[in-house]
Amino acid sequence: MQSDNPTAAILLIGDEFLSGRTRDLNAHHLAGVLNAIGIDLREIRVVADDHRAIVDALRALDRHLGGAWDMVFSSGGIGPTHDDITADAVADAYGAPLELNPEARRVMEEHWGARGVEITASRLRMARIPRGATLIRNAVSAAPGFSIGGLHVMAGVPSVFRSMVETIVPQLATGRPVQSVSIEVLRPESEVADDLRAVAEAHPALSLGSYPFRDERGYGTNVVVRGLDAAEVGRARAALMERFGA
Amino acid sequence: MQSDNPTAAILLIGDEFLSGRTRDLNAHHLAGVLNAIGIDLREIRVVADDHRAIVDALRALDRHLGGAWDMVFSSGGIGPTHDDITADAVADAYGAPLELNPEARRVMEEHWGARGVEITASRLRMARIPRGATLIRNAVSAAPGFSIGGLHVMAGVPSVFRSMVETIVPQLATGRPVQSVSIEVLRPESEVADDLRAVAEAHPALSLGSYPFRDERGYGTNVVVRGLDAAEVGRARAALMERFGA
Repeated sequence: MQSDNPTAAILLIGDEFLSGRTRDLNAHHLAGVLNAIGIDLREIRVVADDHRAIVDALRALDRHLGGAWDMVFSSGGIGPTHDDITADAVADAYGAPLELNPEARRVMEEHWGARGVEITASRLRMARIPRGATLIRNAVSAAPGFSIGGLHVMAGVPSVFRSMVETIVPQLATGRPVQSVSIEVLRPESEVADDLRAVAEAHPALSLGSYPFRDERGYGTNVVVRGLDAAEVGRARAALMERFGA
Repeated sequence: MQSDNPTAAILLIGDEFLSGRTRDLNAHHLAGVLNAIGIDLREIRVVADDHRAIVDALRALDRHLGGAWDMVFSSGGIGPTHDDITADAVADAYGAPLELNPEARRVMEEHWGARGVEITASRLRMARIPRGATLIRNAVSAAPGFSIGGLHVMAGVPSVFRSMVETIVPQLATGRPVQSVSIEVLRPESEVADDLRAVAEAHPALSLGSYPFRDERGYGTNVVVRGLDAAEVGRARAALMERFGA
């Protein structure tokens, strides 16, 4: 798909994805959000709770560090326990000292104070933020995420992640939302391949994807047409419908 | 977690993950399989149906191309349509010409012949395999995957992917399976953080992960202890249970 929209990557941080324990919800959710606001998600990476792996991924992904994409959204590793090492790795990657952030500390102490929760060293770990970063507030928990360079660091807990996504979306540089239509054809993918190719070649600015399925009606194919120009997406859809005799 | 097990990455290829249309099943499935057979999954990447993106990812991931890990498992992009470009990108990355593989062609023609299915150019696209690659048969469809260098190229359709995984598992260099126990504590993560850290420091060969949850009983934490030595995993579990007073 041709696009001059801003580009992005998602970085999931956590052993639990690599062990097969946890199935991702956050990248899937954010992918839908980014498409809807005109940010081209180009890559998703999942790495372990490992300092070197996180630093290397950030350098490869964030244009601000010489990496490939305009922005990066991370999820995971900002909790209170020993395996929450994302803030340390981010501080290292961006060359910013990790400090107890006064604003983060104030928000968290206020939140806990109101609930009679003791402020421990473990809890205060979550107020350690690289110098120069902007906090990302959320409506679910007191502990904030933060933004630095092209990176937005968010929590792994899905409800907190979603709240942080809502916080940052209004601040993001966005582009033209992707227009998308889906057509279901009750024919196997190989039988619609020639028609797809012809229509794809006639519309180089669009992306045509085909996804085979099999259900009680037999073999079928879902064809998805995506692009930034709704009129062109409509024309490609009409051309496909005519070819499919639908 | 300390380990000298072979290492691996999974590469998912497909616009549908990046658009938010499709939620991954295959990486999650394979992650569980690899852990059970002693292969350390270290990274998952998702890239678009884009030649350059696929080639770059393979170079970064497969040790045979100067990349980071011993083996790579890809999923997606080997069907009959114009957006199925994985074989072309693999041929490019490994410097092997893409050829109509006689064995793949024979298997597919036999399968289709028995079903009265016409052999079209689109269908034969699925017999285009880089020279020198080994075929990966599957029990669901005729079209094979293939292995080249440290890479195993498999289908994106989950039933076909799983069948291909079953085919290759007996051929993989494996290590010691990961031993894992999970402990549920009805306390917030920040209240078990000190205990976790102490036990983690006493067992540097193990990996201790903590995963907060909230349900009708209140805040809780799942602690997961992982390692290659079952006895040590058991000792760490006992130490945690004692500290938690459980």
